[in-house]
Amino acid sequence: MKIAVLGTGAVGTTIATKLIELGHQVMIGSRSKTNERAIEFVNKFDRNVINGTFEEAATYGEIIFNCIKGEYAVNALQQAGSGIINKILIDVSIPVDTSKGTPFSLIPELCNTNSLGEEIQKNFPNTKVVKTLNTMWSTLMVVPSMLKDGDHTNFICGNDDEAKSKVRELLKEIGWKEESIMDLGDITGSRGAEGILLLWWKIWAVTIGTFSIKVIN
Amino acid sequence: MKIAVLGTGAVGTTIATKLIELGHQVMIGSRSKTNERAIEFVNKFDRNVINGTFEEAATYGEIIFNCIKGEYAVNALQQAGSGIINKILIDVSIPVDTSKGTPFSLIPELCNTNSLGEEIQKNFPNTKVVKTLNTMWSTLMVVPSMLKDGDHTNFICGNDDEAKSKVRELLKEIGWKEESIMDLGDITGSRGAEGILLLWWKIWAVTIGTFSIKVIN
Repeated sequence: MKIAVLGTGAVGTTIATKLIELGHQVMIGSRSKTNERAIEFVNKFDRNVINGTFEEAATYGEIIFNCIKGEYAVNALQQAGSGIINKILIDVSIPVDTSKGTPFSLIPELCNTNSLGEEIQKNFPNTKVVKTLNTMWSTLMVVPSMLKDGDHTNFICGNDDEAKSKVRELLKEIGWKEESIMDLGDITGSRGAEGILLLWWKIWAVTIGTFSIKVIN
Repeated sequence: MKIAVLGTGAVGTTIATKLIELGHQVMIGSRSKTNERAIEFVNKFDRNVINGTFEEAATYGEIIFNCIKGEYAVNALQQAGSGIINKILIDVSIPVDTSKGTPFSLIPELCNTNSLGEEIQKNFPNTKVVKTLNTMWSTLMVVPSMLKDGDHTNFICGNDDEAKSKVRELLKEIGWKEESIMDLGDITGSRGAEGILLLWWKIWAVTIGTFSIKVIN
């Protein structure tokens, strides 16, 4: 499948690498086609990956990953223009506010009664936003088995059930077990999925090694 | 031990019942000494429990449980007066904002960059606030073994290490395993422990039966 990955940070390149390994054709999107990190990344592979602007990548992809820093995400998606219309947008981004130092918090307008997932859905009503994978460290997103054979929870939410089903299939291809993927309902589930970061950072500060959250019932 | 339980709702009475069963001497605190729910509760037992005002209960207890609704907690603790000075206050309360309907959110001033646990600590600097147990349904707080033999996580945080140690001992007496109690550090950990409620409500909406969260690592 042709997949766009918007963002050239650790999350974007980790996800793109996994998708390329799985045989998908990936286009990395960034603000400029001459983005050095994007070019450096593309040059690591002999095939199945190219780079372009946000708009070129979004237009290319049948599915689009949003791996842009939370504070820039809506602006970057605006640059993607018509490329994201009617597409599934897998939103992995978190609206981190680093301006106040540690402990990190969430951008005030994008927490509690709102979230980045919802904000993107409101700004792009014809895009099918699916929030997932954002509650863990990037390597764990694409190698869930590195922790307790994948026996931990990955939340998913979004307003479009068909879109969620397609994303679920892609997650399973990546290595997620069906029973580890928990559907929280519509995109307002992003409030909890993003808000857990306040807890995540505190757990991270007192935990050695990789960790994740599991819903026990 | 003499323990005060402030609040006569489901959480307060559930915790008080467990403490009485364990042989502790409990005083239920409420706004008025003639509070009907408090009297009704006390009359269920033939010993080890009395009721009184917030101030009488706080003065009585060596340890105090705050089980008051989040929105009223600081005010109720002000009524407890000098009774809470230099005491350990186990804060189980959540700053739920029900004014906007569902999905429930947190009181805007008490989330993200603040929390009820911190707000109480700021208002009562000579009280040793320890936040714990607030991430689950009340029965699970006192019967952790009802879910996977207690193999799920109870977070604890607070500024005073000695106070946290004492609370940890009480938690173990209640039935919590040492390895299931995770110390998040100082009282700012309340932001995550209270904030997880945004996720909790969404999990609750799609889950049958009792559930909790476990940190996997």
